[in-house]
Amino acid sequence: MFDMDAVDDANQSQETPKNDVMSFFESAPLLKDAAEIEKSLTEFVDRNTSSSGKCYFMNGKANRVVCITSGGTTVPLEKQCVRYIDNFASGHRGAASTEYFLKVGYSVVFLYRRGSCQPFCSNLPEDPLLECFSVADDSSIEVDALHAETVKRAITENRAAVAEGILLKLPFTTIFEYLQILQLISVSLRDFGPSAIFFLAAAVSDFYVPWESMALHKIQSASGPLDMRLAQVPKMLSVLRNEWAPMAFHISFKLETDRHILLAKADMALKKYKMHMVIANELLTRKEQVIVVTEQEKVTVCRDSTRAGAEVECPLVELVVDRHSAYIKNFDA
Amino acid sequence: MFDMDAVDDANQSQETPKNDVMSFFESAPLLKDAAEIEKSLTEFVDRNTSSSGKCYFMNGKANRVVCITSGGTTVPLEKQCVRYIDNFASGHRGAASTEYFLKVGYSVVFLYRRGSCQPFCSNLPEDPLLECFSVADDSSIEVDALHAETVKRAITENRAAVAEGILLKLPFTTIFEYLQILQLISVSLRDFGPSAIFFLAAAVSDFYVPWESMALHKIQSASGPLDMRLAQVPKMLSVLRNEWAPMAFHISFKLETDRHILLAKADMALKKYKMHMVIANELLTRKEQVIVVTEQEKVTVCRDSTRAGAEVECPLVELVVDRHSAYIKNFDA
Repeated sequence: MFDMDAVDDANQSQETPKNDVMSFFESAPLLKDAAEIEKSLTEFVDRNTSSSGKCYFMNGKANRVVCITSGGTTVPLEKQCVRYIDNFASGHRGAASTEYFLKVGYSVVFLYRRGSCQPFCSNLPEDPLLECFSVADDSSIEVDALHAETVKRAITENRAAVAEGILLKLPFTTIFEYLQILQLISVSLRDFGPSAIFFLAAAVSDFYVPWESMALHKIQSASGPLDMRLAQVPKMLSVLRNEWAPMAFHISFKLETDRHILLAKADMALKKYKMHMVIANELLTRKEQVIVVTEQEKVTVCRDSTRAGAEVECPLVELVVDRHSAYIKNFDA
Repeated sequence: MFDMDAVDDANQSQETPKNDVMSFFESAPLLKDAAEIEKSLTEFVDRNTSSSGKCYFMNGKANRVVCITSGGTTVPLEKQCVRYIDNFASGHRGAASTEYFLKVGYSVVFLYRRGSCQPFCSNLPEDPLLECFSVADDSSIEVDALHAETVKRAITENRAAVAEGILLKLPFTTIFEYLQILQLISVSLRDFGPSAIFFLAAAVSDFYVPWESMALHKIQSASGPLDMRLAQVPKMLSVLRNEWAPMAFHISFKLETDRHILLAKADMALKKYKMHMVIANELLTRKEQVIVVTEQEKVTVCRDSTRAGAEVECPLVELVVDRHSAYIKNFDA
């Protein structure tokens, strides 16, 4: 079924060929609301640095910020997009982590797949509007008792974070939008220096159809099978790490369904892309535990199973914040 | 890029080879909640036929029912699904049509893609919970004035329809789930005879990866491109039409991005699958107008652009109901 090249050149740090990157971006469709996104990023940075000169380069004592990517990217198979390849990701990891980072005082840029899980909403039913509310006799709207607390928390905490300007939410759908917005974010957060984290929990497509070679119209089905050739997406992790945000603390994720290759792949990503941390998770147990891999250590982080509703993202963010503090200290020294 | 077989054998009515259908279903993963779905269908049929013997075969004067399919199906590329091919479809057409069919007295089985547009909700913001509500000082939950009417309508009408038992909502994600549930529905609605409509607005995948030949684990990206071969999904329209629900009124949809081939494709579907009606729509203008194609006529149906918020589904459903009435009358004669 799948014809794969198993060559693996990953045990050494390696830069992504500039040509691949340039041709990917040149072939990408124009980002529609780039100006608006840049404006909201500028305002976000201003709000989170201006008040008392908290920015890293202003007095050495940094306000901390994290860019959390969440959900899966799509790869269009046609220009007038009817069909696309999608990557499974509910966005739960990114949404829950956003809550914990906000709680410990980080400002968050939440780059999420349109329609994926939102912060403070992960314990709600699939369709909260239709499942949690009813209209009373006096035609006022009521929340069902069962969901009342969760709904209130979702509304208040989410609104508060956005209103205070410490949570900026930016949606994407395609791999093209995702990488273009990620570049805008990395440039905007540059002044935070080592106080910025990139927490790359999104499931990013490995393969894509270059825009130029893409079918303009809907692919016609006929009597035969369909053969497709997909190109590899250039490894943008190393571009982000080395060029876009060279001072930031970088965390990537490795999701595998086969546990036997998971740690080897995580190690490989650490070295190949010079990540500061790789979070390894297996598809079936990812809500119970993850393994945090750094150059120095491999730490298994588990959900506190004695506490109802406890999430693995809580101890995970604690550990990340601890290692990030050490990174900043080391950077200052 | 795409290697397509352009052979077109479509100008004659044609049955889908039994072997293809059998091997598709045999290779499909087991439908998880089949028993629960069957139970809810039985209850739905009972509720909509029992009160005064409204069922077609009980006194010849039928309660009318429509099965509306909505949203796109996915095709998993791996058994432990990380990547899949998706078909673009917001589900707006199916959701809006559901409202109008309910209004004129049809009972509706709404077979929808998980997360796609819901009836009575199409004019709400993308994330209604976070965008329409706020928490007041006394910690009660309030709807923002701008959205109050729409939100109330969504909650009351949706709840009422479900509570009255005239709206049954069944979600799907993959092409396997979709076709298996559609089969269950068609069998359950058999007693409605010609009083049942199948309104097949879902965007169904043309190509799939047979379950048996599917990669068990996540496909590894390496240095080369990825070559994939997808098999054609057997044309289930003719199976539904000829075997599963031979007496019902069948309506399929044809969406194209290239207007020049649209009507030819619609005509072809009408003949090939013996549909009673094909609704042809072009991607870019599909919210403004559609062309209803039957053996006797081609009618362009347009949105009433003089009325704010008017939808093309309103006159479309009117026309469908009119032609369905004629079909039933003719069937009785």
